Amino acid sequence: MESRLHIYNTLSRKKEEFIPLNPPFVGLYACGPTVYSEVHLGNLRSFTSFDMMYRYLMYSGYKVRYVRNITDAGHITDDAGVDNDRIGDRARLEQLEPMEIVQKYTVNFHEVCKLFNLLPPSVEPTATGHILEQIEMVQRIIDNGYGYVANGSVYFDVRKYSEKYNYGKLSGRKIDELLETTRELDGQEEKKYFADFAIWKAVTPQHIQKWNSPWGAGVPGWHLECSVMSTKYLGKEFDIHAGGNDIKFPHHECEIAQSVGADGIEPVKYWVHTNMLTVNGEKMSKSKGNSFLPLELFAGAHPLLAKPYSPSVVRFFMMQTHYSSTLDFSNEALQAAEKGFARLSDAYKILAEFNATDFKSESDNANDIEIIKLINELKSNMDDDFNTPKTIAVLFDLASYIFKIKHESLAISANTISSLQTNFKIFFEDVLGLQIQESGDNNLSSGLMDLILEMRKEARTNKNWNTSDLIRDRLASLNIQVKDEKDGAVSWTSI
Amino acid sequence: MESRLHIYNTLSRKKEEFIPLNPPFVGLYACGPTVYSEVHLGNLRSFTSFDMMYRYLMYSGYKVRYVRNITDAGHITDDAGVDNDRIGDRARLEQLEPMEIVQKYTVNFHEVCKLFNLLPPSVEPTATGHILEQIEMVQRIIDNGYGYVANGSVYFDVRKYSEKYNYGKLSGRKIDELLETTRELDGQEEKKYFADFAIWKAVTPQHIQKWNSPWGAGVPGWHLECSVMSTKYLGKEFDIHAGGNDIKFPHHECEIAQSVGADGIEPVKYWVHTNMLTVNGEKMSKSKGNSFLPLELFAGAHPLLAKPYSPSVVRFFMMQTHYSSTLDFSNEALQAAEKGFARLSDAYKILAEFNATDFKSESDNANDIEIIKLINELKSNMDDDFNTPKTIAVLFDLASYIFKIKHESLAISANTISSLQTNFKIFFEDVLGLQIQESGDNNLSSGLMDLILEMRKEARTNKNWNTSDLIRDRLASLNIQVKDEKDGAVSWTSI
Repeated sequence: MESRLHIYNTLSRKKEEFIPLNPPFVGLYACGPTVYSEVHLGNLRSFTSFDMMYRYLMYSGYKVRYVRNITDAGHITDDAGVDNDRIGDRARLEQLEPMEIVQKYTVNFHEVCKLFNLLPPSVEPTATGHILEQIEMVQRIIDNGYGYVANGSVYFDVRKYSEKYNYGKLSGRKIDELLETTRELDGQEEKKYFADFAIWKAVTPQHIQKWNSPWGAGVPGWHLECSVMSTKYLGKEFDIHAGGNDIKFPHHECEIAQSVGADGIEPVKYWVHTNMLTVNGEKMSKSKGNSFLPLELFAGAHPLLAKPYSPSVVRFFMMQTHYSSTLDFSNEALQAAEKGFARLSDAYKILAEFNATDFKSESDNANDIEIIKLINELKSNMDDDFNTPKTIAVLFDLASYIFKIKHESLAISANTISSLQTNFKIFFEDVLGLQIQESGDNNLSSGLMDLILEMRKEARTNKNWNTSDLIRDRLASLNIQVKDEKDGAVSWTSI
Repeated sequence: MESRLHIYNTLSRKKEEFIPLNPPFVGLYACGPTVYSEVHLGNLRSFTSFDMMYRYLMYSGYKVRYVRNITDAGHITDDAGVDNDRIGDRARLEQLEPMEIVQKYTVNFHEVCKLFNLLPPSVEPTATGHILEQIEMVQRIIDNGYGYVANGSVYFDVRKYSEKYNYGKLSGRKIDELLETTRELDGQEEKKYFADFAIWKAVTPQHIQKWNSPWGAGVPGWHLECSVMSTKYLGKEFDIHAGGNDIKFPHHECEIAQSVGADGIEPVKYWVHTNMLTVNGEKMSKSKGNSFLPLELFAGAHPLLAKPYSPSVVRFFMMQTHYSSTLDFSNEALQAAEKGFARLSDAYKILAEFNATDFKSESDNANDIEIIKLINELKSNMDDDFNTPKTIAVLFDLASYIFKIKHESLAISANTISSLQTNFKIFFEDVLGLQIQESGDNNLSSGLMDLILEMRKEARTNKNWNTSDLIRDRLASLNIQVKDEKDGAVSWTSI
């Protein structure tokens, strides 16, 4: 029986069958980075999860428009209601024009995304690219009675909205409970009600980033940016909105209120939230000194890291945990992932070398049946709310078969081999986005290694132990592990 | 005597000493790509020239803010006044949202830039990111009497402008001569005068990309975008505006008129124009079938290309011609550049291995004097309107010395070696942006090659000709050339 994709919807708090609004089209929006510093590993985990979802939706046959924005302007209010002008603050610190900060960290973000093998989204809109549309949305909210102007800023009227709608329906927060976590803050005196939030914020003269609006010079509210960019490219109602758990409230909650307030339409059918990342069981934080950047991870350049870990290994490591679970970084776990990934990579390479015509044409033995069953499980696991850890477990089971076929000449049919080749590659490469680990390897290195292994063989045949030892030592110093297979072949991995 | 940078200024039609408006700051603006198709090789040549200028200005000690825009929207009118909606047209063709086209070709553009070793600009503003500012500039032009509204579009009033200012001062065109090249075109009937140009263009309902304005829904004029983005980040008057010769008129001419019309300020002190690219002596054009893309060039994937050429070789090839001269692509010229570049790369590698302490401390012989003279010429040639071909000629002269020092033990001093090491690297790598050509090479390959060369040496010492022949043949098949140096050392290049 064909399985169907089910997604855990934060809004309904249950796993639901995924039924797109306008099949075969699927609209997927993800909150992108605020480009005022190097991308954080926790954020990268979220982006990698969104990338996996995008890939799996495409594999599932949908025509996906994946929109992931860049927040390059705006007034950001955090969970506790604290106001931030992160890009402006950083610009003052580095003595740069805000858009220089934006450029620097956008370039950095794209580099890291590429290392992690994230596909570029279909559209990557910027907040500064939609100021006019944001002003228009603010105006609609005011016109509908859900926004009010105070000293050049515009606030969303949460109390008014709550008379008719459920503010808190996504996060499950109750307004009266919110009061306790709110402190006395900038703009608080302008608000009619403590839970109101800025959708347009007047700026002081020293602000460099600002735009003229009907209410004076200011910047759009952060929550508003995502409402505008998602609906502009995906329609007033779209399929999936993904984001980190940490911005479920207030950011996503406010997005719903804004769309309903401006257009009377609930914007999102499926809300998907990724979980956070810890280091040795503790939340990453700069003050604890346990926060490292992706590039530090790849270079092993942090006291907590025993060695460098390649982007492929880190991506594999992330995929081994379900997106909705906490993911804990530790050297032990990363090193275990490294070993596991090497094993899957080996299987991948061996599989690619099989030639279906070398296999028998019948396809009825127990091994064939078991392999086909496992292949089907790749899809059914992914259909179960993108369950990548279970999918990887199946890849490991298939890898065991691949090794047995190779080394123990396990008998399976040509059809099974073909299906195995196709599906292993699709799930490994296209869906999970993994790339064979050949650190520093390429065609030239492979060619040179072939030559070296041939000379090693010759030396051993001639009992020329000096040469054979020289080769072993020098390869070891290059971190190359040579393995003699049972069938007499020699394989190697760059570790 | 210290030389000073001189730049050929299209505006004055002469080479002028470069004196920044606000030293040590320098504002450099370059017209970026319209992202509706893969970046054209001719455009890439311009961007590579701008990159070289940016690099040299930084080397010269200036704090450069380099702004290169992305044209991702707008109404483009070509030389003959033909109206285009390139992004929209392409979107209809590929059945995509215009911003998907923008994203696809922006990603492609950045990839090609990276291959070519172009530094990211300091700010990379987009036209869609400055709609509000463009509307405001149109309004200022109207307010000053240089713009008028017709059917929801706004045109720049060239006749009115010409009463007071010289429209044509940059390109040298005379308005009455323009008439002959103008055909009957879209919007022509709305214009008061044939030479007027759209600064805001009303759109038909089928246009996807459009914004609301005081004059109705429309798109900004292309010329206007650059006026807004350059002055927003560099000030109303800035130092250098670079662009291709082909957009000197009307694009750059209109930029001047717009800035003067809106703010009464001439925007640019130095106008710099790059020249075009030909193939076997003919202008590149799709209809002639002699147009190839950068990635086709690197893959050798075009009937006119005898083989692939690496990005480093192509960049070197471009730098061998002055930016203001026509550059002709041919297999012969590219292959000659490949050889020349390999020679400079060899010199670069040999130079890096010299140890200054192995050289004598005196520095008074003729060779020292001649080398120091050449080193000074690197700068004086670049100061002469960025004369990269002459600079490269000097690098070749220095390369000859480097080979003589290595192979003929030419006596020079430790100071000379140090200065040579520093300056050769700076001009080769930082200023010209060249990268040692190690196609497919990396640390692993280098390590493996060291081992192979050691075994080759051992085999030859032991008169083990079988092994020695095996190594030679296999390296040849990997396109590796091994060279026995006079001093007994062995060098290799991947060709």
